Amino acid sequence: MIGAGLERFSLNQATTKRWTVAEAVVACVEAGVPGVGLWREPVNSYGLERSAKLVRDAGLLVTSLCRGGFFTGADPADRIRSLDDNRRAIDEAATLGTGVLVLVSGGLPTGSRDVGDARAQVADALGELAPYAGERGIRLAIEPLHPMFCSDRCVVSTLGQAVTLAEQFPVEQVGVVVDAYHVWWDPEVYAEIARAGGRIACFQVCDWVTPLPEGVLLGRGMMGDGCIELRRLREAVDAAGYDGLIEVEIFNSRLWDSPGAEVLELAIARYREHVT
Amino acid sequence: MIGAGLERFSLNQATTKRWTVAEAVVACVEAGVPGVGLWREPVNSYGLERSAKLVRDAGLLVTSLCRGGFFTGADPADRIRSLDDNRRAIDEAATLGTGVLVLVSGGLPTGSRDVGDARAQVADALGELAPYAGERGIRLAIEPLHPMFCSDRCVVSTLGQAVTLAEQFPVEQVGVVVDAYHVWWDPEVYAEIARAGGRIACFQVCDWVTPLPEGVLLGRGMMGDGCIELRRLREAVDAAGYDGLIEVEIFNSRLWDSPGAEVLELAIARYREHVT
Repeated sequence: MIGAGLERFSLNQATTKRWTVAEAVVACVEAGVPGVGLWREPVNSYGLERSAKLVRDAGLLVTSLCRGGFFTGADPADRIRSLDDNRRAIDEAATLGTGVLVLVSGGLPTGSRDVGDARAQVADALGELAPYAGERGIRLAIEPLHPMFCSDRCVVSTLGQAVTLAEQFPVEQVGVVVDAYHVWWDPEVYAEIARAGGRIACFQVCDWVTPLPEGVLLGRGMMGDGCIELRRLREAVDAAGYDGLIEVEIFNSRLWDSPGAEVLELAIARYREHVT
Repeated sequence: MIGAGLERFSLNQATTKRWTVAEAVVACVEAGVPGVGLWREPVNSYGLERSAKLVRDAGLLVTSLCRGGFFTGADPADRIRSLDDNRRAIDEAATLGTGVLVLVSGGLPTGSRDVGDARAQVADALGELAPYAGERGIRLAIEPLHPMFCSDRCVVSTLGQAVTLAEQFPVEQVGVVVDAYHVWWDPEVYAEIARAGGRIACFQVCDWVTPLPEGVLLGRGMMGDGCIELRRLREAVDAAGYDGLIEVEIFNSRLWDSPGAEVLELAIARYREHVT
Protein backbone atom coordinates (compact mmCIF):
# COMPACT_ATOMS: atom_id res chain seq x y z
CA MET A 1 0.00 0.00 0.00
CA ILE A 2 1.38 3.37 -1.00
CA GLY A 3 1.96 5.81 1.84
CA ALA A 4 0.04 9.09 2.01
CA GLY A 5 1.73 11.65 -0.20
CA LEU A 6 4.27 9.11 -1.42
CA GLU A 7 2.63 8.38 -4.77
CA ARG A 8 5.67 9.78 -6.59
CA PHE A 9 8.43 8.84 -4.15
CA SER A 10 11.21 6.61 -5.41
CA LEU A 11 14.23 5.56 -3.38
CA ASN A 12 17.39 5.59 -5.44
CA GLN A 13 19.36 2.85 -3.80
CA ALA A 14 22.56 4.91 -3.73
CA THR A 15 20.91 6.81 -0.86
CA THR A 16 21.03 3.69 1.31
CA LYS A 17 24.13 2.30 -0.26
CA ARG A 18 24.86 -0.40 2.31
CA TRP A 19 21.51 -2.09 1.76
CA THR A 20 21.33 -5.00 -0.65
CA VAL A 21 18.64 -4.88 -3.30
CA ALA A 22 16.52 -7.18 -1.11
CA GLU A 23 16.89 -4.97 1.96
CA ALA A 24 15.96 -1.87 -0.05
CA VAL A 25 12.93 -3.57 -1.59
CA VAL A 26 11.62 -4.84 1.74
CA ALA A 27 12.10 -1.42 3.35
CA CYS A 28 10.31 0.36 0.50
CA VAL A 29 7.34 -1.98 0.68
CA GLU A 30 7.12 -1.55 4.46
CA ALA A 31 7.35 2.24 4.16
CA GLY A 32 4.72 2.47 1.43
CA VAL A 33 7.24 3.68 -1.15
CA PRO A 34 6.14 2.77 -4.68
CA GLY A 35 9.42 3.05 -6.61
CA VAL A 36 13.12 2.32 -6.55
CA GLY A 37 16.05 3.47 -8.64
CA LEU A 38 18.53 0.62 -8.98
CA TRP A 39 22.28 0.50 -9.61
CA ARG A 40 24.03 -2.06 -11.72
CA GLU A 41 26.66 -3.16 -9.21
CA PRO A 42 24.32 -4.11 -6.33
CA VAL A 43 21.85 -5.59 -8.82
CA ASN A 44 24.53 -7.81 -10.30
CA SER A 45 25.81 -8.71 -6.83
CA TYR A 46 22.34 -9.86 -5.86
CA GLY A 47 21.70 -11.39 -9.27
CA LEU A 48 20.02 -9.71 -12.21
CA GLU A 49 17.11 -12.12 -12.71
CA ARG A 50 16.69 -12.47 -8.96
CA SER A 51 16.54 -8.68 -8.55
CA ALA A 52 14.05 -8.39 -11.40
CA LYS A 53 11.77 -11.01 -9.82
CA LEU A 54 12.10 -9.39 -6.41
CA VAL A 55 10.98 -5.92 -7.49
CA ARG A 56 8.26 -7.35 -9.74
CA ASP A 57 6.83 -9.53 -6.96
CA ALA A 58 6.99 -6.59 -4.57
CA GLY A 59 4.99 -4.46 -7.00
CA LEU A 60 7.66 -1.79 -7.09
CA LEU A 61 8.22 0.46 -10.09
CA VAL A 62 11.88 0.59 -11.15
CA THR A 63 12.20 4.26 -12.00
CA SER A 64 15.69 3.99 -13.48
CA LEU A 65 18.81 1.93 -13.71
CA CYS A 66 22.05 3.73 -12.92
CA ARG A 67 24.14 3.81 -14.92
CA GLY A 68 25.44 3.65 -18.39
CA GLY A 69 27.75 6.14 -20.02
CA PHE A 70 31.48 6.75 -19.58
CA PHE A 71 31.65 7.02 -23.35
CA THR A 72 34.87 9.01 -23.58
CA GLY A 73 38.13 7.22 -24.13
CA ALA A 74 41.69 7.81 -25.20
CA ASP A 75 41.57 5.24 -27.99
CA PRO A 76 39.09 3.27 -30.11
CA ALA A 77 39.47 0.15 -27.95
CA ASP A 78 38.26 2.09 -24.89
CA ARG A 79 35.26 3.27 -26.83
CA ILE A 80 34.40 -0.20 -28.12
CA ARG A 81 34.56 -1.56 -24.57
CA SER A 82 32.31 1.26 -23.43
CA LEU A 83 29.71 0.59 -26.13
CA ASP A 84 29.69 -3.12 -25.27
CA ASP A 85 29.20 -2.32 -21.61
CA ASN A 86 26.39 0.09 -22.42
CA ARG A 87 24.59 -2.54 -24.50
CA ARG A 88 24.78 -4.83 -21.47
CA ALA A 89 23.38 -2.03 -19.29
CA ILE A 90 20.48 -1.58 -21.73
CA ASP A 91 19.78 -5.31 -21.61
CA GLU A 92 19.90 -5.23 -17.81
CA ALA A 93 17.48 -2.31 -17.72
CA ALA A 94 15.08 -4.25 -19.95
CA THR A 95 15.32 -7.30 -17.69
CA LEU A 96 14.61 -5.17 -14.62
CA GLY A 97 11.49 -3.75 -16.22
CA THR A 98 12.54 -0.11 -16.08
CA GLY A 99 12.23 2.14 -19.09
CA VAL A 100 15.13 4.43 -18.19
CA LEU A 101 18.90 3.97 -18.25
CA VAL A 102 20.69 6.93 -16.65
CA LEU A 103 23.86 7.99 -18.46
CA VAL A 104 26.88 9.61 -16.85
CA SER A 105 28.65 10.44 -20.06
CA GLY A 106 32.29 10.46 -18.98
CA GLY A 107 34.94 13.10 -18.46
CA LEU A 108 38.11 13.96 -20.33
CA PRO A 109 40.26 10.99 -21.29
CA THR A 110 43.49 10.86 -19.28
CA GLY A 111 45.90 13.50 -20.52
CA SER A 112 43.35 15.16 -22.81
CA ARG A 113 42.54 18.85 -22.76
CA ASP A 114 40.04 18.61 -25.61
CA VAL A 115 36.62 18.92 -24.03
CA GLY A 116 35.09 19.53 -27.45
CA ASP A 117 36.37 16.18 -28.69
CA ALA A 118 35.09 14.43 -25.57
CA ARG A 119 31.66 15.94 -26.18
CA ALA A 120 31.74 14.74 -29.77
CA GLN A 121 32.53 11.22 -28.50
CA VAL A 122 29.43 11.36 -26.31
CA ALA A 123 27.26 12.31 -29.28
CA ASP A 124 28.80 9.52 -31.38
CA ALA A 125 28.15 6.93 -28.67
CA LEU A 126 24.53 8.02 -28.37
CA GLY A 127 24.18 7.59 -32.10
CA GLU A 128 25.43 4.00 -31.78
CA LEU A 129 23.28 3.11 -28.78
CA ALA A 130 19.99 4.93 -29.23
CA PRO A 131 18.46 2.51 -31.77
CA TYR A 132 19.61 -0.50 -29.71
CA ALA A 133 17.96 1.01 -26.64
CA GLY A 134 14.80 1.93 -28.53
CA GLU A 135 14.37 -1.62 -29.83
CA ARG A 136 14.38 -2.87 -26.24
CA GLY A 137 11.97 -0.24 -24.91
CA ILE A 138 14.71 1.59 -23.01
CA ARG A 139 15.19 5.32 -23.04
CA LEU A 140 18.71 6.61 -22.59
CA ALA A 141 18.60 9.48 -20.12
CA ILE A 142 21.50 11.92 -20.45
CA GLU A 143 22.34 13.34 -17.05
CA PRO A 144 24.08 16.69 -17.03
CA LEU A 145 26.46 16.64 -14.09
CA HIS A 146 27.52 19.70 -12.14
CA PRO A 147 30.41 21.46 -13.92
CA MET A 148 32.73 20.52 -11.04
CA PHE A 149 32.62 16.98 -12.50
CA CYS A 150 33.38 18.04 -16.08
CA SER A 151 36.97 16.84 -16.16
CA ASP A 152 36.60 13.49 -14.45
CA ARG A 153 33.02 12.27 -14.78
CA CYS A 154 30.82 14.03 -17.27
CA VAL A 155 31.47 16.54 -20.02
CA VAL A 156 27.72 17.16 -20.28
CA SER A 157 27.55 20.06 -17.86
CA THR A 158 24.24 21.86 -18.37
CA LEU A 159 20.66 20.84 -18.91
CA GLY A 160 20.59 22.91 -22.10
CA GLN A 161 23.52 20.95 -23.48
CA ALA A 162 21.82 17.66 -22.57
CA VAL A 163 18.56 18.68 -24.21
CA THR A 164 20.34 19.77 -27.39
CA LEU A 165 22.11 16.41 -27.50
CA ALA A 166 18.91 14.48 -26.83
CA GLU A 167 17.02 16.34 -29.55
CA GLN A 168 19.22 14.71 -32.17
CA PHE A 169 17.39 11.44 -31.48
CA PRO A 170 13.79 10.23 -31.33
CA VAL A 171 12.09 11.30 -28.11
CA GLU A 172 11.35 7.72 -27.04
CA GLN A 173 15.02 6.74 -27.43
CA VAL A 174 16.85 9.57 -25.69
CA GLY A 175 15.78 11.82 -22.82
CA VAL A 176 17.44 13.76 -20.02
CA VAL A 177 17.74 13.54 -16.26
CA VAL A 178 16.99 16.61 -14.19
CA ASP A 179 18.95 16.15 -10.96
CA ALA A 180 18.40 19.18 -8.73
CA TYR A 181 21.92 18.90 -7.32
CA HIS A 182 23.53 19.28 -10.71
CA VAL A 183 21.38 22.02 -12.23
CA TRP A 184 20.03 24.31 -9.48
CA TRP A 185 22.75 26.97 -9.95
CA ASP A 186 22.12 27.41 -13.69
CA PRO A 187 20.64 30.81 -14.62
CA GLU A 188 18.93 29.05 -17.53
CA VAL A 189 17.56 26.09 -15.59
CA TYR A 190 13.88 27.05 -15.66
CA ALA A 191 13.97 27.93 -19.34
CA GLU A 192 15.77 24.67 -20.09
CA ILE A 193 13.34 22.57 -18.04
CA ALA A 194 10.50 24.08 -20.07
CA ARG A 195 12.39 23.38 -23.30
CA ALA A 196 13.16 19.82 -22.18
CA GLY A 197 9.42 19.09 -21.90
CA GLY A 198 8.73 15.50 -22.87
CA ARG A 199 12.46 14.73 -22.89
CA ILE A 200 12.53 14.60 -19.09
CA ALA A 201 12.95 10.92 -18.29
CA CYS A 202 13.92 11.16 -14.63
CA PHE A 203 13.80 13.76 -11.85
CA GLN A 204 16.11 13.43 -8.85
CA VAL A 205 16.35 15.41 -5.63
CA CYS A 206 18.77 15.99 -2.78
CA ASP A 207 20.29 19.25 -1.51
CA TRP A 208 23.39 21.41 -1.95
CA VAL A 209 25.43 21.88 1.20
CA THR A 210 28.83 23.41 1.83
CA PRO A 211 31.66 23.02 2.55
CA LEU A 212 32.16 20.36 -0.08
CA PRO A 213 34.25 17.39 1.07
CA GLU A 214 37.53 16.37 -0.53
CA GLY A 215 36.81 14.92 -3.95
CA VAL A 216 33.33 16.55 -3.79
CA LEU A 217 31.47 13.35 -4.70
CA LEU A 218 30.01 12.44 -1.33
CA GLY A 219 28.87 15.85 -0.15
CA ARG A 220 25.22 15.81 -1.17
CA GLY A 221 22.77 16.88 1.47
CA MET A 222 19.40 15.62 2.64
CA MET A 223 16.54 17.67 1.24
CA GLY A 224 16.02 20.72 3.43
CA ASP A 225 19.61 20.83 4.70
CA GLY A 226 20.81 23.06 1.86
CA CYS A 227 19.89 25.88 -0.46
CA ILE A 228 18.12 24.30 -3.44
CA GLU A 229 14.60 25.50 -4.21
CA LEU A 230 13.39 21.91 -4.56
CA ARG A 231 9.69 22.62 -4.67
CA ARG A 232 10.12 25.24 -7.37
CA LEU A 233 12.17 22.83 -9.46
CA ARG A 234 9.59 20.08 -8.95
CA GLU A 235 6.81 22.42 -10.01
CA ALA A 236 8.80 23.43 -13.11
CA VAL A 237 9.39 19.80 -14.05
CA ASP A 238 5.67 19.09 -13.57
CA ALA A 239 4.74 22.11 -15.67
CA ALA A 240 7.02 20.80 -18.43
CA GLY A 241 4.85 17.68 -18.52
CA TYR A 242 6.81 15.24 -16.39
CA ASP A 243 4.46 13.00 -14.43
CA GLY A 244 6.87 10.26 -13.39
CA LEU A 245 8.23 9.46 -9.97
CA ILE A 246 10.79 11.56 -8.09
CA GLU A 247 13.98 9.80 -7.08
CA VAL A 248 15.71 10.69 -3.85
CA GLU A 249 19.39 10.19 -4.63
CA ILE A 250 21.92 11.25 -1.99
CA PHE A 251 25.60 10.33 -1.99
CA ASN A 252 26.69 11.19 1.52
CA SER A 253 29.23 9.28 3.54
CA ARG A 254 27.62 10.30 6.83
CA LEU A 255 24.22 9.04 5.72
CA TRP A 256 25.80 5.83 4.48
CA ASP A 257 27.12 5.28 8.01
CA SER A 258 23.60 5.65 9.44
CA PRO A 259 21.04 2.81 9.58
CA GLY A 260 19.18 2.63 6.26
CA ALA A 261 15.77 2.65 7.95
CA GLU A 262 16.52 5.98 9.63
CA VAL A 263 17.76 7.48 6.36
CA LEU A 264 14.64 6.35 4.52
CA GLU A 265 12.37 7.69 7.26
CA LEU A 266 14.13 11.05 7.20
CA ALA A 267 14.09 11.17 3.40
CA ILE A 268 10.32 10.57 3.40
CA ALA A 269 9.72 13.31 5.98
CA ARG A 270 11.93 15.80 4.12
CA TYR A 271 10.38 14.89 0.79
CA ARG A 272 6.95 15.69 2.19
CA GLU A 273 8.21 18.95 3.64
CA HIS A 274 10.37 20.25 0.78
CA VAL A 275 9.36 18.56 -2.46
CA THR A 276 5.63 17.76 -2.62
CA MET B 1 63.38 45.56 -18.30
CA ILE B 2 60.61 43.26 -19.46
CA GLY B 3 61.58 39.61 -19.91
CA ALA B 4 61.39 37.93 -23.31
CA GLY B 5 57.81 36.80 -23.97
CA LEU B 6 56.60 38.34 -20.71
CA GLU B 7 55.11 41.49 -22.23
CA ARG B 8 51.65 40.43 -21.07
CA PHE B 9 52.53 38.56 -17.88
CA SER B 10 51.03 39.81 -14.64
CA LEU B 11 51.51 38.16 -11.26
CA ASN B 12 48.33 38.16 -9.24
CA GLN B 13 49.68 38.36 -5.74
CA ALA B 14 47.35 35.64 -4.47
CA THR B 15 49.66 33.21 -6.31
CA THR B 16 52.49 34.07 -3.93
CA LYS B 17 50.24 34.80 -1.00
CA ARG B 18 52.93 34.89 1.70
CA TRP B 19 54.82 37.69 -0.01
CA THR B 20 54.16 41.24 1.09
CA VAL B 21 53.40 43.79 -1.59
CA ALA B 22 57.04 44.90 -1.43
CA GLU B 23 58.39 41.37 -1.84
CA ALA B 24 56.10 40.76 -4.81
CA VAL B 25 57.07 44.04 -6.46
CA VAL B 26 60.80 43.45 -6.05
CA ALA B 27 60.50 39.90 -7.40
CA CYS B 28 58.48 41.04 -10.42
CA VAL B 29 61.00 43.71 -11.30
CA GLU B 30 63.88 41.23 -10.98
CA ALA B 31 62.07 38.65 -13.12
CA GLY B 32 61.17 41.13 -15.85
CA VAL B 33 57.46 40.86 -15.12
CA PRO B 34 55.59 44.03 -16.15
CA GLY B 35 52.36 43.73 -14.15
CA VAL B 36 50.85 42.78 -10.82
CA GLY B 37 47.33 42.09 -9.65
CA LEU B 38 46.91 43.33 -6.10
CA TRP B 39 44.62 42.34 -3.24
CA ARG B 40 43.10 44.74 -0.79
CA GLU B 41 44.17 42.99 2.42
CA PRO B 42 47.94 42.86 1.75
CA VAL B 43 47.80 46.35 0.21
CA ASN B 44 46.16 47.75 3.31
CA SER B 45 48.57 45.83 5.54
CA TYR B 46 51.49 47.40 3.73
CA GLY B 47 49.76 50.76 3.46
CA LEU B 48 47.66 51.97 0.55
CA GLU B 49 49.67 55.09 -0.37
CA ARG B 50 52.90 53.28 0.27
CA SER B 51 51.84 50.40 -2.02
CA ALA B 52 50.77 52.87 -4.70
CA LYS B 53 54.12 54.63 -4.60
CA LEU B 54 55.99 51.34 -4.63
CA VAL B 55 54.37 49.98 -7.77
CA ARG B 56 54.52 53.37 -9.48
CA ASP B 57 58.22 53.80 -8.74
CA ALA B 58 58.88 50.25 -9.90
CA GLY B 59 57.17 50.96 -13.21
CA LEU B 60 54.71 48.08 -12.74
CA LEU B 61 51.26 48.10 -14.24
CA VAL B 62 48.58 47.22 -11.69
CA THR B 63 46.33 45.01 -13.80
CA SER B 64 43.56 44.74 -11.23
CA LEU B 65 42.61 45.13 -7.61
CA CYS B 66 40.90 42.13 -6.00
CA ARG B 67 38.29 42.47 -4.87
CA GLY B 68 35.01 44.16 -4.42
CA GLY B 69 31.63 42.49 -4.44
CA PHE B 70 29.87 40.37 -1.83
CA PHE B 71 26.75 42.36 -2.62
CA THR B 72 24.20 39.87 -1.36
CA GLY B 73 22.85 40.20 2.13
CA ALA B 74 20.01 39.05 4.32
CA ASP B 75 18.89 42.57 5.20
CA PRO B 76 19.25 46.20 4.03
CA ALA B 77 21.95 46.95 6.62
CA ASP B 78 24.16 44.22 5.14
CA ARG B 79 23.71 45.70 1.71
CA ILE B 80 24.48 49.25 2.85
CA ARG B 81 27.67 48.03 4.51
CA SER B 82 28.59 46.22 1.31
CA LEU B 83 28.05 49.30 -0.86
CA ASP B 84 30.17 51.40 1.51
CA ASP B 85 32.93 48.85 1.39
CA ASN B 86 32.78 48.71 -2.39
CA ARG B 87 33.08 52.50 -2.64
CA ARG B 88 36.22 52.24 -0.52
CA ALA B 89 37.52 49.51 -2.83
CA ILE B 90 36.90 51.75 -5.84
CA ASP B 91 38.79 54.58 -4.13
CA GLU B 92 41.66 52.22 -3.33
CA ALA B 93 41.79 51.03 -6.94
CA ALA B 94 42.01 54.64 -8.10
CA THR B 95 44.83 55.35 -5.63
CA LEU B 96 46.74 52.28 -6.83
CA GLY B 97 46.50 53.44 -10.42
CA THR B 98 44.68 50.42 -11.74
CA GLY B 99 41.62 50.72 -13.94
CA VAL B 100 40.00 47.46 -12.86
CA LEU B 101 38.24 46.36 -9.68
CA VAL B 102 37.45 42.65 -9.74
CA LEU B 103 34.06 41.77 -8.26
CA VAL B 104 33.18 38.50 -6.57
CA SER B 105 29.49 39.15 -6.33
CA GLY B 106 28.51 37.09 -3.28
CA GLY B 107 26.57 33.90 -2.70
CA LEU B 108 23.21 33.20 -1.14
CA PRO B 109 22.53 35.03 2.11
CA THR B 110 22.52 32.67 5.11
CA GLY B 111 19.34 30.62 5.14
CA SER B 112 18.20 31.80 1.71
CA ARG B 113 17.22 29.48 -1.12
CA ASP B 114 16.35 32.33 -3.47
CA VAL B 115 19.16 32.49 -6.00
CA GLY B 116 17.02 34.68 -8.24
CA ASP B 117 16.72 37.29 -5.50
CA ALA B 118 20.46 37.16 -4.81
CA ARG B 119 21.11 37.76 -8.51
CA ALA B 120 18.75 40.73 -8.45
CA GLN B 121 20.70 42.14 -5.49
CA VAL B 122 23.89 41.95 -7.53
CA ALA B 123 22.30 43.89 -10.39
CA ASP B 124 20.98 46.50 -7.94
CA ALA B 125 24.41 46.96 -6.36
CA LEU B 126 26.02 47.41 -9.76
CA GLY B 127 23.46 50.09 -10.52
CA GLU B 128 24.48 51.92 -7.35
CA LEU B 129 28.21 51.58 -7.88
CA ALA B 130 28.81 51.84 -11.63
CA PRO B 131 28.54 55.65 -11.88
CA TYR B 132 30.70 56.09 -8.77
CA ALA B 133 33.35 53.84 -10.34
CA GLY B 134 33.10 55.54 -13.73
CA GLU B 135 33.68 58.96 -12.19
CA ARG B 136 36.95 57.68 -10.73
CA GLY B 137 38.16 55.97 -13.90
CA ILE B 138 37.57 52.51 -12.48
CA ARG B 139 35.86 49.72 -14.33
CA LEU B 140 33.94 47.18 -12.28
CA ALA B 141 34.82 43.72 -13.57
CA ILE B 142 32.17 41.10 -12.85
CA GLU B 143 33.84 37.75 -12.36
CA PRO B 144 31.70 34.70 -13.00
CA LEU B 145 32.82 32.07 -10.52
CA HIS B 146 32.63 28.34 -11.14
CA PRO B 147 29.12 27.04 -10.31
CA MET B 148 30.56 25.10 -7.36
CA PHE B 149 30.85 28.50 -5.63
CA CYS B 150 27.28 29.60 -6.38
CA SER B 151 25.90 29.11 -2.90
CA ASP B 152 28.69 30.60 -0.84
CA ARG B 153 30.70 33.03 -2.97
CA CYS B 154 29.17 34.13 -6.22
CA VAL B 155 25.75 33.75 -7.78
CA VAL B 156 27.18 34.92 -11.10
CA SER B 157 28.01 31.49 -12.48
CA THR B 158 28.57 31.80 -16.23
CA LEU B 159 30.32 34.22 -18.52
CA GLY B 160 27.09 34.70 -20.43
CA GLN B 161 25.32 35.78 -17.26
CA ALA B 162 28.15 38.20 -16.44
CA VAL B 163 28.11 39.72 -19.93
CA THR B 164 24.33 40.17 -19.83
CA LEU B 165 24.67 41.92 -16.47
CA ALA B 166 27.52 44.11 -17.67
CA GLU B 167 25.63 45.15 -20.79
CA GLN B 168 23.13 47.03 -18.65
CA PHE B 169 25.85 49.61 -17.98
CA PRO B 170 28.22 51.76 -20.02
CA VAL B 171 31.14 49.72 -21.34
CA GLU B 172 33.73 51.89 -19.56
CA GLN B 173 31.98 51.41 -16.20
CA VAL B 174 31.31 47.67 -16.11
CA GLY B 175 33.20 44.79 -17.70
CA VAL B 176 33.82 41.12 -17.02
CA VAL B 177 36.67 38.91 -15.89
CA VAL B 178 37.48 35.81 -17.89
CA ASP B 179 39.18 33.43 -15.45
CA ALA B 180 40.02 30.19 -17.23
CA TYR B 181 39.46 28.19 -14.04
CA HIS B 182 35.87 29.31 -13.70
CA VAL B 183 34.71 29.13 -17.31
CA TRP B 184 36.63 26.41 -19.17
CA TRP B 185 33.90 23.77 -18.74
CA ASP B 186 31.13 25.93 -20.25
CA PRO B 187 29.84 24.66 -23.60
CA GLU B 188 29.10 28.30 -24.47
CA VAL B 189 32.43 29.75 -23.37
CA TYR B 190 33.84 30.53 -26.82
CA ALA B 191 30.59 32.07 -28.02
CA GLU B 192 30.38 34.13 -24.83
CA ILE B 193 34.00 35.33 -25.05
CA ALA B 194 33.25 36.56 -28.57
CA ARG B 195 30.07 38.25 -27.33
CA ALA B 196 31.93 39.79 -24.40
CA GLY B 197 34.27 41.57 -26.81
CA GLY B 198 35.26 44.93 -25.37
CA ARG B 199 33.68 44.05 -22.02
CA ILE B 200 36.65 41.85 -21.15
CA ALA B 201 38.49 43.79 -18.45
CA CYS B 202 40.76 41.08 -17.11
CA PHE B 203 41.96 37.63 -18.19
CA GLN B 204 43.28 35.18 -15.60
CA VAL B 205 44.90 31.77 -15.95
CA CYS B 206 45.68 28.72 -13.83
CA ASP B 207 44.64 25.10 -14.34
CA TRP B 208 41.92 22.66 -13.31
CA VAL B 209 43.19 19.66 -11.38
CA THR B 210 41.39 16.89 -9.53
CA PRO B 211 40.69 15.64 -6.95
CA LEU B 212 39.44 18.90 -5.50
CA PRO B 213 40.43 19.49 -1.88
CA GLU B 214 37.94 19.88 0.96
CA GLY B 215 36.21 23.23 0.58
CA VAL B 216 37.43 23.34 -3.06
CA LEU B 217 38.89 26.86 -2.78
CA LEU B 218 42.58 26.04 -2.69
CA GLY B 219 42.75 23.38 -5.38
CA ARG B 220 43.79 25.42 -8.38
CA GLY B 221 46.64 24.04 -10.38
CA MET B 222 49.71 25.51 -12.03
CA MET B 223 49.27 26.02 -15.77
CA GLY B 224 50.05 22.76 -17.54
CA ASP B 225 49.20 20.55 -14.57
CA GLY B 226 45.54 20.20 -15.53
CA CYS B 227 43.10 19.96 -18.40
CA ILE B 228 42.28 23.53 -19.44
CA GLU B 229 42.98 24.52 -23.04
CA LEU B 230 44.69 27.71 -21.90
CA ARG B 231 46.18 28.71 -25.22
CA ARG B 232 42.85 28.30 -27.00
CA LEU B 233 41.14 30.46 -24.38
CA ARG B 234 43.88 33.08 -24.64
CA GLU B 235 43.53 33.14 -28.42
CA ALA B 236 39.76 33.52 -28.10
CA VAL B 237 40.13 36.41 -25.67
CA ASP B 238 42.62 38.04 -28.02
CA ALA B 239 40.29 37.53 -30.98
CA ALA B 240 37.53 39.22 -29.00
CA GLY B 241 39.73 42.31 -28.84
CA TYR B 242 41.36 41.98 -25.43
CA ASP B 243 44.91 43.30 -25.51
CA GLY B 244 45.58 43.68 -21.80
CA LEU B 245 47.87 41.68 -19.57
CA ILE B 246 47.25 38.11 -18.47
CA GLU B 247 47.13 37.50 -14.74
CA VAL B 248 48.43 34.28 -13.28
CA GLU B 249 46.18 33.67 -10.27
CA ILE B 250 46.56 30.38 -8.41
CA PHE B 251 45.09 29.62 -5.00
CA ASN B 252 46.91 26.50 -3.96
CA SER B 253 47.97 25.67 -0.44
CA ARG B 254 50.93 23.59 -1.61
CA LEU B 255 52.26 26.45 -3.75
CA TRP B 256 51.74 28.84 -0.85
CA ASP B 257 54.03 26.62 1.21
CA SER B 258 56.77 26.87 -1.45
CA PRO B 259 59.24 29.75 -1.72
CA GLY B 260 57.67 32.58 -3.72
CA ALA B 261 60.65 32.87 -6.04
CA GLU B 262 60.30 29.24 -7.10
CA VAL B 263 56.58 29.66 -7.70
CA LEU B 264 57.13 32.74 -9.84
CA GLU B 265 59.87 31.05 -11.83
CA LEU B 266 57.65 28.03 -12.48
CA ALA B 267 54.68 30.24 -13.35
CA ILE B 268 56.79 32.10 -15.91
CA ALA B 269 58.00 28.87 -17.49
CA ARG B 270 54.52 27.39 -17.65
CA TYR B 271 53.05 30.61 -18.97
CA ARG B 272 55.55 30.53 -21.83
CA GLU B 273 54.78 26.87 -22.49
CA HIS B 274 50.99 26.85 -22.19
CA VAL B 275 49.63 30.36 -22.61
CA THR B 276 51.64 32.45 -25.07
